[in-house]
Amino acid sequence: MPAPNPLSALLAPSSVAIFGASNDPTRISGRSLRYFREAGFRGGLYPINPTRDTVQGVIAYPDIASVPGPVECAVIAVPANLAVEAMEACVQKGVKAVVMFTAGFAEIGPEGRAMQTRITQIAKDGGIRLCGPNCLGLFNMRIGHTPTFSSFLEEGPTPAGPLGMVTQSGAFGTHLLALTARRGIAVGVWLSTGNEADVAVADGISFMADDPDTVAIACYVEAIKDGARFAEAVARARRNGKPVICMKVGGSAVGHAAAASHTASLAGNDAIYDAALRQLGVERAKTPEDLVEIAYACTRGRLPRSRRLAVVTMSGGAGVLMADAAEEEGLELTPLADESQKAVLSWVPFAAPRNPVDVTAQALNDPSILDKSFDLLLGKEKFPAMVGFFTTWASSPQMAEPLYQAVSGAVSRHPDAYFALSAIAQPDMQRRYEAAGIGVYEDPWRAVEAIAAAVRCAERLHTPPLSVPPLPRDLPPLPKGRIAEYEAKRILAAAGIPVLDEILATSAGEAAAAASGLGEEHLVLKIVSPDIAHKTEMGGVMLDVPAGEVGEAYERLVARVQARAMNATIDGVLISPMLKGGTEMILGVQNDPVFGPVVMLGLGGIFVEVLRDVTFRIAPFGCEEAQRMIAELRGAAILQGARGQPPADLDALAEALSNLSLFAAAKRAEFTSIDINPLLVRAKGEGAAALDALILTPE
Amino acid sequence: MPAPNPLSALLAPSSVAIFGASNDPTRISGRSLRYFREAGFRGGLYPINPTRDTVQGVIAYPDIASVPGPVECAVIAVPANLAVEAMEACVQKGVKAVVMFTAGFAEIGPEGRAMQTRITQIAKDGGIRLCGPNCLGLFNMRIGHTPTFSSFLEEGPTPAGPLGMVTQSGAFGTHLLALTARRGIAVGVWLSTGNEADVAVADGISFMADDPDTVAIACYVEAIKDGARFAEAVARARRNGKPVICMKVGGSAVGHAAAASHTASLAGNDAIYDAALRQLGVERAKTPEDLVEIAYACTRGRLPRSRRLAVVTMSGGAGVLMADAAEEEGLELTPLADESQKAVLSWVPFAAPRNPVDVTAQALNDPSILDKSFDLLLGKEKFPAMVGFFTTWASSPQMAEPLYQAVSGAVSRHPDAYFALSAIAQPDMQRRYEAAGIGVYEDPWRAVEAIAAAVRCAERLHTPPLSVPPLPRDLPPLPKGRIAEYEAKRILAAAGIPVLDEILATSAGEAAAAASGLGEEHLVLKIVSPDIAHKTEMGGVMLDVPAGEVGEAYERLVARVQARAMNATIDGVLISPMLKGGTEMILGVQNDPVFGPVVMLGLGGIFVEVLRDVTFRIAPFGCEEAQRMIAELRGAAILQGARGQPPADLDALAEALSNLSLFAAAKRAEFTSIDINPLLVRAKGEGAAALDALILTPE
Repeated sequence: MPAPNPLSALLAPSSVAIFGASNDPTRISGRSLRYFREAGFRGGLYPINPTRDTVQGVIAYPDIASVPGPVECAVIAVPANLAVEAMEACVQKGVKAVVMFTAGFAEIGPEGRAMQTRITQIAKDGGIRLCGPNCLGLFNMRIGHTPTFSSFLEEGPTPAGPLGMVTQSGAFGTHLLALTARRGIAVGVWLSTGNEADVAVADGISFMADDPDTVAIACYVEAIKDGARFAEAVARARRNGKPVICMKVGGSAVGHAAAASHTASLAGNDAIYDAALRQLGVERAKTPEDLVEIAYACTRGRLPRSRRLAVVTMSGGAGVLMADAAEEEGLELTPLADESQKAVLSWVPFAAPRNPVDVTAQALNDPSILDKSFDLLLGKEKFPAMVGFFTTWASSPQMAEPLYQAVSGAVSRHPDAYFALSAIAQPDMQRRYEAAGIGVYEDPWRAVEAIAAAVRCAERLHTPPLSVPPLPRDLPPLPKGRIAEYEAKRILAAAGIPVLDEILATSAGEAAAAASGLGEEHLVLKIVSPDIAHKTEMGGVMLDVPAGEVGEAYERLVARVQARAMNATIDGVLISPMLKGGTEMILGVQNDPVFGPVVMLGLGGIFVEVLRDVTFRIAPFGCEEAQRMIAELRGAAILQGARGQPPADLDALAEALSNLSLFAAAKRAEFTSIDINPLLVRAKGEGAAALDALILTPE
Repeated sequence: MPAPNPLSALLAPSSVAIFGASNDPTRISGRSLRYFREAGFRGGLYPINPTRDTVQGVIAYPDIASVPGPVECAVIAVPANLAVEAMEACVQKGVKAVVMFTAGFAEIGPEGRAMQTRITQIAKDGGIRLCGPNCLGLFNMRIGHTPTFSSFLEEGPTPAGPLGMVTQSGAFGTHLLALTARRGIAVGVWLSTGNEADVAVADGISFMADDPDTVAIACYVEAIKDGARFAEAVARARRNGKPVICMKVGGSAVGHAAAASHTASLAGNDAIYDAALRQLGVERAKTPEDLVEIAYACTRGRLPRSRRLAVVTMSGGAGVLMADAAEEEGLELTPLADESQKAVLSWVPFAAPRNPVDVTAQALNDPSILDKSFDLLLGKEKFPAMVGFFTTWASSPQMAEPLYQAVSGAVSRHPDAYFALSAIAQPDMQRRYEAAGIGVYEDPWRAVEAIAAAVRCAERLHTPPLSVPPLPRDLPPLPKGRIAEYEAKRILAAAGIPVLDEILATSAGEAAAAASGLGEEHLVLKIVSPDIAHKTEMGGVMLDVPAGEVGEAYERLVARVQARAMNATIDGVLISPMLKGGTEMILGVQNDPVFGPVVMLGLGGIFVEVLRDVTFRIAPFGCEEAQRMIAELRGAAILQGARGQPPADLDALAEALSNLSLFAAAKRAEFTSIDINPLLVRAKGEGAAALDALILTPE
């Protein structure tokens, strides 16, 4: 027996008490009880109501202590000022999970925040998992468990379908439930998290990852509080073969502010969220429609096995459009073999036989053309996925049935194939297709987009997660405050970031000796001073100094800096080789409040400054993830040898990135930010070198 | 009386003959007649059928010559081999327009193409406008004119609504008609153009621009054959206050190939299409859903007057999401005045009062909160557009009617306001909102997108088209073949493209004299030879030569080139000032088969070569359009003074672009391509200069 999921008391309890349950089934305090009864919950169900013997026909108890036998889960909808008392009673009774609808906590200001902290502490000390407060609750239709007042259940219990859904906002969650239902997707388990005093979106994902009847998980997120917990939940879903689709809002300035004022959560940087979701293998949906359509595509009973797509149409125009969509989405319309093209032409002389395959309106006269075409594409040509455009045929009296027979027949003969239909069908016909595992899309572009999302989800599930090297151990503690170039580079060098051979000279004589020791023709001299943040602006850098002139240059450099920064302590001058060529990159790490250390990579110069061409990854990660990061840069071609440059040493860059991420992860508690600007990447085989670096740590 | 539109015989005739009309109303040759009867066409209707006295109850004629009185429009559905004869009979009868369903013409190969040319010529000589062949026909429900066999009319005549639709593909057009109908938009006039032997999408737009009952025009295009005709039609629609929304497919490689094989049309470069549509003021829709939703947003009886948007919700989550969408779409959620925010809080203590305005579920208890909020936003705060998110309230027994009263009341009190609702409504309630001019969207993101599209359409209609300066006249004819640097720059200089003072020297003495004549300290020397295409590669360029050394440099340069290109004719050496600083741009013109001369602009170096950061405009255009073009470059910040550079002389660049476009338009018949690479743009006030140029003309 595996250990039960930590949320099973909340989402799959054997007994439920409802505080303040009303006899009026239309009131908020009466709705949940009604939903339980309508959904046929078989566990213990205990309305708590001191004024009635029964509530809606169910035996009521004056308080939770009076309930005979154990109560696993409790619903609290009492006003905020009574919530503490109710929570304490739950602890006394040994309740394991509480759903708290009550509003008036952290979302209303400091006073509410203090109250929320108090009930959260009571729950924690009492071993209770708390959902909410300020939430709309949840349902698990697999057992008829409905601790919610969402109006979604007003029309009766919803089928216990294959989709799991977690939404931070209950009101918007209700809207998403309505949209999915209209699209013909049944949500079996839904959780809204409200203020997330304890239970967060991640916990819901984790429960649904374990739920054997959930095949895909859709979420709506305004802010993730704990990135690591979220990552763990997503990894669990992946291990269990379930795609996670996520809409994360609050990316705009106004949206960010609005999100911060809503359900008391702080939204982070959207670019980092975007990178993190990609890295974790989450399919990010941009709009509610996208979320619903991707969820639809991922709950058809199978997922496409590769990016090859066959397109069959009865209209050339739709074929063109779907070819455009496929290219944009990265699907491959590989052309049919010559022999297969000849076969198509033998059935339909004016067909387009290549792919898209346009069988023309000829199939109206001879529906067997459809059977033959589908078998050719899914059988002989072994396409893992196919989309057919048949416009209103699916609803025409003449063609609706023959089309259904052809499509469902093909799917039953080729059960691994992923078949999507772009057509306009009446609701009952639409349901028949769906029951056969075939998604129906009115818009052919949308059909291709949905297939592509399903392909991406399948690819993530079938690709093992990239390995992450072990974190470095036994690193000495970082100094406090501002760690400037010389020291920062030594620290990073010890962590595997390449730096140049360089020597700190404290006199002209040492400088000259260092120059000849390094054996380079030209050198760079840089002032080393804890008091000078911007070396170049203070005249503290000399480039391209011939080896023989380094002693004299030392004197000039020190004099120049002293003239400009009279009180600066000067620790010496750093002598290093003058490199020519190569590409300057900017590497950085910031300690994100949600995801912890996040590594940034950008190309130097205009790419970062004008185009904001940067990419992020959560630390730690290995070289393969670093290579993906590099490839994401719009200016990546520069590194691959555009404009006659030699290809850059991408392996060295990837290794530096990975090592930086390992160092940052190991030292996450000790620093605020790390900058390597620039890291010079030289030609393939010549490595890379951090030319300057800065580490900031808390004082 | 304005002149009738050239397509009125086709789209609004007073009499119609149908060749080969069948008595079987389900057959292709019988359908159109049935549709005419069902739609109540009041004009003359003449089935042509040699075997029957009546067809479907209508008196038939053995041939068109036998029809008493004139026939303005004829429908030809006879097999291809009989089409010539039918067309000739139409000419004899004085028919003015023919709709030809018949397939088997240019789309099937050379033989069909020849046949198509023949019938097109017969039509042209006979004064007949030809729609098709290989088309599904058209309808104009305003008069019950239905020369089509599209299955869209199988469910009976469609209402004569406000949307006009032109689709190159009839099958896909039928699908779009079905999608718009399902969305509650009635298409009053529809035209499919098939092979476009004569009548093209542009002609349909032009007719609908003149049709008083059409308020917006949607089109589906695979290829535009005549860019000028298309531009003229769109301009006509704009003058008449009608937005044009266009989906252009075939942008991908496979899609392009598929489009080329379909309805015998050649698709052009998608980047040029994209630029052209933008320049012409067409709203480009990417997907069928987008096309339908934008058409829906543009047929609500009004358009929004500016980009300011008020968002009202009952869910914080939806507010966040709509704020994100608004930012992405360039709409402005300006915050409410303090006083207004206080008013909102006085009605709903826990409201978010800023914008998005979250009135919370409180309005469930007190719907007057909605009235007050709407009046505040549309009245006192004068928002031109508002979107309200009210999820399932629009379909809840308790709230559906109060919400409708509040929303429709606000719209009737503020008739100029554009109000969109994001909600889930039952079909009858949805229709009631629509009748009140309110669009209803299930997805709040989609609602904001649709409003933004309506705003863009309104902006285009309210902004007069940019003026275009007159084309230069009396330019000398261009020489034939390859016009190299020296001559190309002189030609372009005469057209107003700035070039440097430069002197062609044919001896060392002339070179030295030229150098001192130019009065510059450093000069550039470039070989002038009709036989050398790549000067730099042949050692034909010397940069930064001190003025005193120019004579000697001349000798070295000529000797060097002669050594490498022994048989090259050398016309001399061009002596020009050596400029430092500035930004190198690439300007080009290509003669596009669809749009004629198209001007390209890119930033030199990595921007063009790595990032493909280029932008296009159809010639000719003025400086304001040129400024927009510059602003579209992703690297535009470089010119505006990023990275500590002085801001560049954008006015000089814009003038050069505009002058190049005027020159190209004037000389469109005489050149193949023009390249100015680079054009150096100097600091603001210092102008620009073409440093090299090449013009290719047909030999």
